[in-house]
Amino acid sequence: MKKYCFGVDVGGTTIKMGLFDTDGNVLDKWEIVTRTENNGENVLPDIAEAVKNKMAEKSIAKEDVAGVGVGVPGPVDSKGIVHRCVNLGWDEFNVNEKLGALVDMPVMAGNDANVAALGEMWRGGGQGHEDLVVVTLGTGVGGGIIINGKMLTGANGSGGEIGHIHVQDGEPDTCGCGNNGCLEQYASATGIVRLAKRALAKTSQATVLNADSVTAKDVWDAVKDGDAVAIEVAEQFGKYLGEGLAAIAGVVNPEAFVIGGGVSKAGEILLSYVEKNYKPVVFHGSRDVEFTLATLGNDAGIFGAAKLILG
Amino acid sequence: MKKYCFGVDVGGTTIKMGLFDTDGNVLDKWEIVTRTENNGENVLPDIAEAVKNKMAEKSIAKEDVAGVGVGVPGPVDSKGIVHRCVNLGWDEFNVNEKLGALVDMPVMAGNDANVAALGEMWRGGGQGHEDLVVVTLGTGVGGGIIINGKMLTGANGSGGEIGHIHVQDGEPDTCGCGNNGCLEQYASATGIVRLAKRALAKTSQATVLNADSVTAKDVWDAVKDGDAVAIEVAEQFGKYLGEGLAAIAGVVNPEAFVIGGGVSKAGEILLSYVEKNYKPVVFHGSRDVEFTLATLGNDAGIFGAAKLILG
Repeated sequence: MKKYCFGVDVGGTTIKMGLFDTDGNVLDKWEIVTRTENNGENVLPDIAEAVKNKMAEKSIAKEDVAGVGVGVPGPVDSKGIVHRCVNLGWDEFNVNEKLGALVDMPVMAGNDANVAALGEMWRGGGQGHEDLVVVTLGTGVGGGIIINGKMLTGANGSGGEIGHIHVQDGEPDTCGCGNNGCLEQYASATGIVRLAKRALAKTSQATVLNADSVTAKDVWDAVKDGDAVAIEVAEQFGKYLGEGLAAIAGVVNPEAFVIGGGVSKAGEILLSYVEKNYKPVVFHGSRDVEFTLATLGNDAGIFGAAKLILG
Repeated sequence: MKKYCFGVDVGGTTIKMGLFDTDGNVLDKWEIVTRTENNGENVLPDIAEAVKNKMAEKSIAKEDVAGVGVGVPGPVDSKGIVHRCVNLGWDEFNVNEKLGALVDMPVMAGNDANVAALGEMWRGGGQGHEDLVVVTLGTGVGGGIIINGKMLTGANGSGGEIGHIHVQDGEPDTCGCGNNGCLEQYASATGIVRLAKRALAKTSQATVLNADSVTAKDVWDAVKDGDAVAIEVAEQFGKYLGEGLAAIAGVVNPEAFVIGGGVSKAGEILLSYVEKNYKPVVFHGSRDVEFTLATLGNDAGIFGAAKLILG
């Protein structure tokens, strides 16, 4: 019977590390710097060293550790093969095997958004559900889909890339993915700013929003204060995201949508705009799905990574 | 070691039955009438009787039969519970248990579109793939999603209900599901007729299509002959379905889309209109997915039902 495991969340600037007991309690968490130079060749050795140092510090024997789960910022298939990871400079290789050899323990890697979704299911806003969709509204829009308690990785690790569902024809701005009219271009923090600037450019209504400095938080604060222009932006946001989630529900029929990321700090009012636009267009079998807020914040990744290795 | 299994596909007018060996060869297939009177109370007893009669006829011992797989025209969850089946008059009950008691063998039931998708994976157009989406373009648009070789049933059996993804605002006609602007309203046989009638009503171009009698087959035949109005309809169809499938790919990242149903008899030219509209909007990780035609036709259901019970 194993007693411990490690959950690792690799980001472009820092790597979050967690030591867990097998009941899912965090015993320790810390961060190390992500060294991306030389195509990120130091990232896995740095993780291995951090794991070994922590085991030495805590006098943990290898026999007591179930292994290391890892969330990675790019597509990872079900075998642990990463297919390019732009932020880290990584090309294609098998993370499970490469890190496994360094730590001499089982390693399981997954895409960071999918892994975070697993974390929210296990210890966060999605507890009690085995079929759920976790939507992360940050700089971009990320998604993680859990079916029967397992991550949906897809054929080449691009499962749950819901930020790049096409929702608008004729969008002049190009998305980071190279397409135009992706959900992420309207429902992310930067997307809300895009919608706000466009609304401000053509309105003559009084508003507290300032086109030169508006942030997603400004918009939601103004919505709460009844600002008409902000409310118009929230309606547009709600329509894009609500209809996008309805399409996703038509595919996977989840029990719950769990909404996280910085933008979700706006709280229940954000959910209300999404639900209002979701219900009229979704298939009736998915109409009564639960909308809830993520609760783990930036720790979702290390929790999910721990769950990934615990199975 | 079991030698046989039964695959059953329950429709609103007939029930297709198949006797298979466990290698997936059809040894016999036949149909019985679907008796929907009295809330369809005879349907399961009729299936049980047909199974027993066939076993007697072929001198098959119960010990040699793996069980009975069943596809049902309505949502069925992963436990075999059917949640209303309008065409059969069924309310909510557990098909696995009820039919299992009648045949005294294991029974596994699934939604008919999901089960048909399993059939296409096993012995049809989706062979060689474990992550695929089967799209059935008939009177409506049905979908079946296979992840890691298993049906995606969803929280209450509404997984893969892709015909009811909202793709158009402002649609005046109401879909059978009660919503407006569902994919099915444009990409099914009746949807193509809808698009054709609307195109004909506002065109002054010469065309072989006749608004009073146009069928989906007429449209595709005319496309092949270079009819400009038919080609316009095919473009619209391709945009709705291509963008719809791109959204689905953004969720599940399949290896292949397998297109079946009566409308798919138009053949490769239909796939070309779908692919052309799919590629520009799909996330790059799903751009090289395979588009292929279903091959089992009306037998997909019995094959998939057999596969369901064989596991």
